[in-house]
Amino acid sequence: MKDKILSALENGGEYVSGEELSKNLGVSRTAVWKNIKALRDEGYIISSSTKRGYRLEGVPDILNKQLICGGLDVSSAGTDMLILKTVDSTNDEAKRMAANGAPSGLIIAAENQTGGKGRLGRSWCSDSGGLYFTLLLRPELPPADIAGITLSAGYAVCLAIREYTGLDALIKWPNDVIIGNRKVCGILTEMAAQSDRIDYVVIGIGINVNHSEFPGEIKNKATSLFIETGERIDRNKLFRLVIEKLDKVLGSFLFSLSAEDMEGFKDLCATMGRRVTLERSGVTISGEAVDITSSGELVIKDDNGKEYNINSGEVSVQGIY
Amino acid sequence: MKDKILSALENGGEYVSGEELSKNLGVSRTAVWKNIKALRDEGYIISSSTKRGYRLEGVPDILNKQLICGGLDVSSAGTDMLILKTVDSTNDEAKRMAANGAPSGLIIAAENQTGGKGRLGRSWCSDSGGLYFTLLLRPELPPADIAGITLSAGYAVCLAIREYTGLDALIKWPNDVIIGNRKVCGILTEMAAQSDRIDYVVIGIGINVNHSEFPGEIKNKATSLFIETGERIDRNKLFRLVIEKLDKVLGSFLFSLSAEDMEGFKDLCATMGRRVTLERSGVTISGEAVDITSSGELVIKDDNGKEYNINSGEVSVQGIY
Repeated sequence: MKDKILSALENGGEYVSGEELSKNLGVSRTAVWKNIKALRDEGYIISSSTKRGYRLEGVPDILNKQLICGGLDVSSAGTDMLILKTVDSTNDEAKRMAANGAPSGLIIAAENQTGGKGRLGRSWCSDSGGLYFTLLLRPELPPADIAGITLSAGYAVCLAIREYTGLDALIKWPNDVIIGNRKVCGILTEMAAQSDRIDYVVIGIGINVNHSEFPGEIKNKATSLFIETGERIDRNKLFRLVIEKLDKVLGSFLFSLSAEDMEGFKDLCATMGRRVTLERSGVTISGEAVDITSSGELVIKDDNGKEYNINSGEVSVQGIY
Repeated sequence: MKDKILSALENGGEYVSGEELSKNLGVSRTAVWKNIKALRDEGYIISSSTKRGYRLEGVPDILNKQLICGGLDVSSAGTDMLILKTVDSTNDEAKRMAANGAPSGLIIAAENQTGGKGRLGRSWCSDSGGLYFTLLLRPELPPADIAGITLSAGYAVCLAIREYTGLDALIKWPNDVIIGNRKVCGILTEMAAQSDRIDYVVIGIGINVNHSEFPGEIKNKATSLFIETGERIDRNKLFRLVIEKLDKVLGSFLFSLSAEDMEGFKDLCATMGRRVTLERSGVTISGEAVDITSSGELVIKDDNGKEYNINSGEVSVQGIY
């Protein structure tokens, strides 16, 4: 009912009378009033005038399922959503739910994570103002395809940020999105699988949205959409856009990424054409990143012209944090 | 202490006096007597004579850590072992323990599984008389290598069965061991992983050992070592041998399978050279199994000479169940 009243108030800044709400939604005037109060408690600014009724003046900066998902036409990503105030990590919560049979397409989002994590067990800064969520998928694919799923997710986030902000967001292979040479989004993909078939994949996505600054050690490596644009971002709108892109890119990936998508991806990959270095069993390989294979490997050409296909993310790129 | 007394009694059928046990192990005569009683409760047949002491007359057909692991020199598989009387599934138990930090090399075995499972959620018959266990590994490998881990495990079991029984056990790609055209062992490998790194792998192995018959629907598809040899198998000895082979083969796999191992594997693969069929997205591919790649894919050559690399196990082989 609260969501329905909120929808009715989202009518372009016009007043809606309590009587009208009561009649259209088939509830008592008291019920309308109680729900208006509940919305105000959540941070919505709703003015009231004895003669004209209620008007929505301001929306709180909190995630709202109705605003994110209402009327969204998706089939792969965001077919259902759960928003939590706080959680240890949205990936861990999604894995617990997956183990209990949660369906493909579900998104778990949280305002705050107490134990947000990045690759290889690193911690991930999850202060308020970010967008932290995990998409659960159950694709009928072999485990090796997880690399392509991660790349697809990064590509989708990159497209959404570009469309919303106009910023030149780029992908840092394999799982970051950067603006300039600073990280604005990190992706942590985890899966449970048998030898030849994925059981489920959880794609954890953390986007720095309205952060105005970062603590000391990551200050020079991280940025946010607010820092880059100088404007507050509507997280619900951005989230909705990210889900639309994820649904499109991942939906097509599950039937294997088209050559066109692959070219689009490479065009947005900051790593391509750069000098990169990685350590492997104590040996250092340096060279130019010259390609990305259809299975998501980075192809590095060393100074002797020898090519290496790399599937690990432990690659440092010259000029990027 | 119980294990120490058991070791002392395993001296080739000689009597050992209570006084000697008490002195050598540094415990009271009462403690010796209590432990003898506990061993008898477990099914060990221990005779006693007032003058000569105790003698081990018979060992129960139960898994015994001391007999399986005592003095075993392994580094990858079986570095620790937990034996349970009954469990839902040794894979599920191993996954729970892995999530709580259990170390690589641990084996979880059970006399009975109440919910033993095979690939794609199929159930697995876990009656008494079989060997049911799961090996937990934490290899620093990309997820795609899980296919090779499954093949290596099947290869190891095949070698152990051949050495113990002299039977012509063969591998049915990718995860069964067969004798004649019936299944004697199934392997279910599951993992938790990030995009580019396995977190842990559990390798569930079920071997039909002393079963004298199988229920109706699997009668023509399953066999046991007892059925094939006509003799009761010492499960503890077989288990020890399987662990030794697993340690050797998987230990070498983790540094990538040698060309020699790969040839050995192909020699024991019943699928090679046979006519196989698989369905894929509604299309049927038929042809001859001509090779197995180093990453564990089955190469099928169809009647037009076109080759396909197959990574899914849903392949039916002419002439094998």
